[in-house]
Amino acid sequence: MAESWPFLDTFEPNFRPLVVIELAKGTKEETIEWFTKRIVDKKANGGAQLLIKPLVTENRDEHIYLVGASHLRLLLGAEAVGLVKECSDNSMRTFTYSSRKTFKDFADDNHNFLTMAECQYIIKHELENLRAKDEKMIPGYPQAKLYPGKSIVRRLLTSGILVQIFPLHDREELKKLRHSWYGRVKVGYQPLDEIRCYFGETIALYFGFLEYFTFALIPMAVIGIPYYVFAWEDYDKYVVFATFNLLWSTVILEVWKRICAIMTYRWGTLLMKRQFEEPRPGFHGVLGINPVTGREEPVYSSIKRQIRIYLVSLPFVCLCLYFSLYVMMIYFDLEQWALDYHEVNESNFSSLMLFVPSIIYAIVIEIMNRIYRYAAEFLTSWENHRLESSYQNHLILKVLVFNFLNCFASLFYIAFVLFDMKLLRQSLATLLITSQILNQFAESLLPYWLQKRHKKRMKKRMCSLKTDTDLSLVEQVNLEKEMGTYFGTFDDYLELFLQFGYVSLFSCVYPLAAVFAVLNNITEIYSDALKMCRVYKRPFAEPTANIGVWQLAFETMSVISVVTNCILIGMSPQVNALFTDSKTDLILTVALVEHLLLAIKFIMAFVIPDKPRDIQIKLAKLEFESLEALKQQVRATDMYNSEK
Amino acid sequence: MAESWPFLDTFEPNFRPLVVIELAKGTKEETIEWFTKRIVDKKANGGAQLLIKPLVTENRDEHIYLVGASHLRLLLGAEAVGLVKECSDNSMRTFTYSSRKTFKDFADDNHNFLTMAECQYIIKHELENLRAKDEKMIPGYPQAKLYPGKSIVRRLLTSGILVQIFPLHDREELKKLRHSWYGRVKVGYQPLDEIRCYFGETIALYFGFLEYFTFALIPMAVIGIPYYVFAWEDYDKYVVFATFNLLWSTVILEVWKRICAIMTYRWGTLLMKRQFEEPRPGFHGVLGINPVTGREEPVYSSIKRQIRIYLVSLPFVCLCLYFSLYVMMIYFDLEQWALDYHEVNESNFSSLMLFVPSIIYAIVIEIMNRIYRYAAEFLTSWENHRLESSYQNHLILKVLVFNFLNCFASLFYIAFVLFDMKLLRQSLATLLITSQILNQFAESLLPYWLQKRHKKRMKKRMCSLKTDTDLSLVEQVNLEKEMGTYFGTFDDYLELFLQFGYVSLFSCVYPLAAVFAVLNNITEIYSDALKMCRVYKRPFAEPTANIGVWQLAFETMSVISVVTNCILIGMSPQVNALFTDSKTDLILTVALVEHLLLAIKFIMAFVIPDKPRDIQIKLAKLEFESLEALKQQVRATDMYNSEK
Repeated sequence: MAESWPFLDTFEPNFRPLVVIELAKGTKEETIEWFTKRIVDKKANGGAQLLIKPLVTENRDEHIYLVGASHLRLLLGAEAVGLVKECSDNSMRTFTYSSRKTFKDFADDNHNFLTMAECQYIIKHELENLRAKDEKMIPGYPQAKLYPGKSIVRRLLTSGILVQIFPLHDREELKKLRHSWYGRVKVGYQPLDEIRCYFGETIALYFGFLEYFTFALIPMAVIGIPYYVFAWEDYDKYVVFATFNLLWSTVILEVWKRICAIMTYRWGTLLMKRQFEEPRPGFHGVLGINPVTGREEPVYSSIKRQIRIYLVSLPFVCLCLYFSLYVMMIYFDLEQWALDYHEVNESNFSSLMLFVPSIIYAIVIEIMNRIYRYAAEFLTSWENHRLESSYQNHLILKVLVFNFLNCFASLFYIAFVLFDMKLLRQSLATLLITSQILNQFAESLLPYWLQKRHKKRMKKRMCSLKTDTDLSLVEQVNLEKEMGTYFGTFDDYLELFLQFGYVSLFSCVYPLAAVFAVLNNITEIYSDALKMCRVYKRPFAEPTANIGVWQLAFETMSVISVVTNCILIGMSPQVNALFTDSKTDLILTVALVEHLLLAIKFIMAFVIPDKPRDIQIKLAKLEFESLEALKQQVRATDMYNSEK
Repeated sequence: MAESWPFLDTFEPNFRPLVVIELAKGTKEETIEWFTKRIVDKKANGGAQLLIKPLVTENRDEHIYLVGASHLRLLLGAEAVGLVKECSDNSMRTFTYSSRKTFKDFADDNHNFLTMAECQYIIKHELENLRAKDEKMIPGYPQAKLYPGKSIVRRLLTSGILVQIFPLHDREELKKLRHSWYGRVKVGYQPLDEIRCYFGETIALYFGFLEYFTFALIPMAVIGIPYYVFAWEDYDKYVVFATFNLLWSTVILEVWKRICAIMTYRWGTLLMKRQFEEPRPGFHGVLGINPVTGREEPVYSSIKRQIRIYLVSLPFVCLCLYFSLYVMMIYFDLEQWALDYHEVNESNFSSLMLFVPSIIYAIVIEIMNRIYRYAAEFLTSWENHRLESSYQNHLILKVLVFNFLNCFASLFYIAFVLFDMKLLRQSLATLLITSQILNQFAESLLPYWLQKRHKKRMKKRMCSLKTDTDLSLVEQVNLEKEMGTYFGTFDDYLELFLQFGYVSLFSCVYPLAAVFAVLNNITEIYSDALKMCRVYKRPFAEPTANIGVWQLAFETMSVISVVTNCILIGMSPQVNALFTDSKTDLILTVALVEHLLLAIKFIMAFVIPDKPRDIQIKLAKLEFESLEALKQQVRATDMYNSEK
């Protein structure tokens, strides 16, 4: 195969491989030829105008290709995806090729103007926008239908001809990043800008949030420690702690929006215009006309989707929630039964039996979580959302509600039905700590160990024991293509979300939760960093301006925690002692305080601006400039003078 | 003066007066000459390039000018203000002069393409954007300082040289509008599109909201009637009514957003880009550089403003609220004293005395409202907001809070401190009905009557008793310049807002409130229409896409009403009878129901999309087109082929 690509080397002597394409074993020659031709073809002919090289491996059955692009092509691609870069005058502007000289660090021979992650994002974008012209099917595969405008890569993926596309690691850069990120023991911030350059904005923003959240928890942890040390149980101290917590959680969520705006402004994504979203790969429907674009594409009635959501998914989710509650009730019955059994016939066996219900419940919850996750993915996929973003939002909502109930229902039951504060504190501590330990293990250490083993085996097979950086390109690709795929920040945010729940929902019962959360998050940063750098394939960079639906989720949690904390304080014996003569007064006072706190929360969220003043001014300046430019255009037509 | 304008008549034989400018008596000749020259001067010389004619009146001391513009000038102005008009293919697009042929109803000789209100808005915009070049002061008035870029008209207004600028009525059009609006007895919708053409979007949207709100109240009124007729007092029926009310008020506010989007899309304002806002006339500060525009203008530190808001205005408002509560307490004391007095010495005098506290309280409230309004305007002006919109928002907030307390505090006191449901119902009915009657009278009928008298006197003075349409231009201008000025929709919305409070806050106590509100609103539509057409000067049209801060105010009221209604139901004897054994259970149940209702409200507000699907698609289509146009530009540079 390699013989048919000589012209490439003459055009681009220093071909830099950026993205790897792996086709299925036994893919037909005609398909490969057609696909690669479309990739290198000129834009004017409907191609992507990229560079491609086959990777020659021992295994002649494998079809692996390296994709790159000329420097000029990348710059034009940067304009097409609407990248925002810093100008020489320190303002952020949308990059255009014609205005390239005005950008900071731009030089025609500076190939580092675009970061590698940006180059890979551009190539991914160009590949995904490679569209069928008049092909009715993928050559060689009559069952893989095409229609004008259908993304070729997406059809190749859904029909299994394309196994995977992934960006290559840059061993040198990765080594540098690893060193400054977690390689040395130091106290300080993460190198977020470097992470963003290497992994893109979505992942950098996750690590930014993780770091910010950890710092934000420190005041709560510091205030929480004396409650544990001195075993404070006074009413007034608890009220102070809980009130501080509630207001603090509002403040940190509002301030995060501001910090997020500062970061994404610097990265350019705050200004990036949202591209028109193409249908997600799994979307199907009758071929029709998209009312927005006027192009041919599958169309699926929105009413049908609504029916599926409200008449199937919603009842199913409710049923699952009910089932989860039912299982919880069985667990409490079992626990009671075990307790009774232990009391009646006290023996070693019976005291062992005491642990059985918890163990069974933990296992059942884990199984339910997994089954539910599959069901949620299946249902959301069956709802047939046109856009990936809408699919993601519906999936996140489904999973969030179920996970919330699974994690917290037993705590709510203990707190508000059994009224057992001691048991609540104990359960909370057990749940928090075990879940943290399990998570750390299952998420990073286990995959890291598996990966290490796999690497050793690979190296042995290749009979070469060089160090990482000395690996040949072939070896590097072979290693990386076997690595696990990072499926996005969903699970990482979910973990943080549940942790936030443990910390805030019952904060006045267990002030030490924040301490554990801080400790966990410090190690979490390192284990997540390890995971990104060592365990998984490099993910494609995704530009993003905020943490999206998670902001809403965290805010909702903080509203719920106002309610729970007020009730908990109202139930504490210290407070009850204050209202000995009238329980009604107690409840009314608690309700009043709760409403006041909620009102303060909403007013605070309303009063604190989402963007710092200087970012607001910078954004207003850009808007003003574009308005002025429009007016200049009007003046340029100069109709005034030509007529009079 | 008239002799110096002959060239105008040659250029524009059919000069159509659109806007009237009245200068102060005794304005210096040089000032007038300079100002009028700037108005007619070419755009290239920094003029407004409008047409101007002096109005020759008997009184030689008066300086009244009529401003108009050529058809071409208005079209270019329409492009400058960013008007959105309907295209031949029924889509809405921003008007540009070069693409004028693609617009519906456009023809070079069709002078009705722009409505008169739009023409007047354009002229107002052009006049306000007439900016000082190198003048240091207004010629003839050294104390009226100017600096480069300062709006001349605004300086003339603030220094009292310019008395007023107002748009002329179009007698023919107004007659037609009056006829279709309220001239004949008919059942049906208001001619909102015609109102919008004549008065602009802000006023049309107010009438649209008033009409929508009235229709939305009808179901509540219909359900409320049997409660009054059959004197239903059953627990379950009240709960049903209140629950219906609460959910209904959420639904109507969400649906209004959709209807508003449909209307403003049709009017083009939904798509209109917000212009860069210039400082409001009253804004002052040290001359500096605006960080956004880079132009010289007065600059005022935002921190100073924050200090004024939080350290002066906020405490002042709180003090006023406290004072208002204090006055209310005195009223209740007086009432109690009068009651006691009546019981002890029963006589005609003592039964008359019973009314005295209410009368005094009503008068005091009215006085407090007025004083507070002045204080709020003074304070907000002193806070020195740069933008008119920000000034308005701060003023609205201040006035809203105070009015809310003044109107509802006594009802809250009766309901939740005195627990006197009978008195609550009685006070509610009295307050609602008297405030409605007083409003109708003070707002329209009184000014209308004054206006009529004034008109008669004017006509007598002019010794001509022609009908309205036969008035000469001079007479028309003289009549209109003496008419009252309409200060915007603030008071009209405030009235509706308080009415919404009466209807929803205590709806389960007095279901008949909705009936009165509906009846009031039907007459309100007519009296407001009368007011707009007959009593006031024609206001300048203001493009707007929604009802702004009022949406938030109504939504807040509907949240508060959930709380009050839940408490009221919980306090009713019927519900208390159900929980005879435990008052605690009752309160807990009420709190639970309240939280559930609030949760449902928020979920409903979240789930119902703010824009109907077809509007969403149309907006997406426009966005897609502009993205495609950008891409076309990229392709046009065609760097791909030139390099390879």
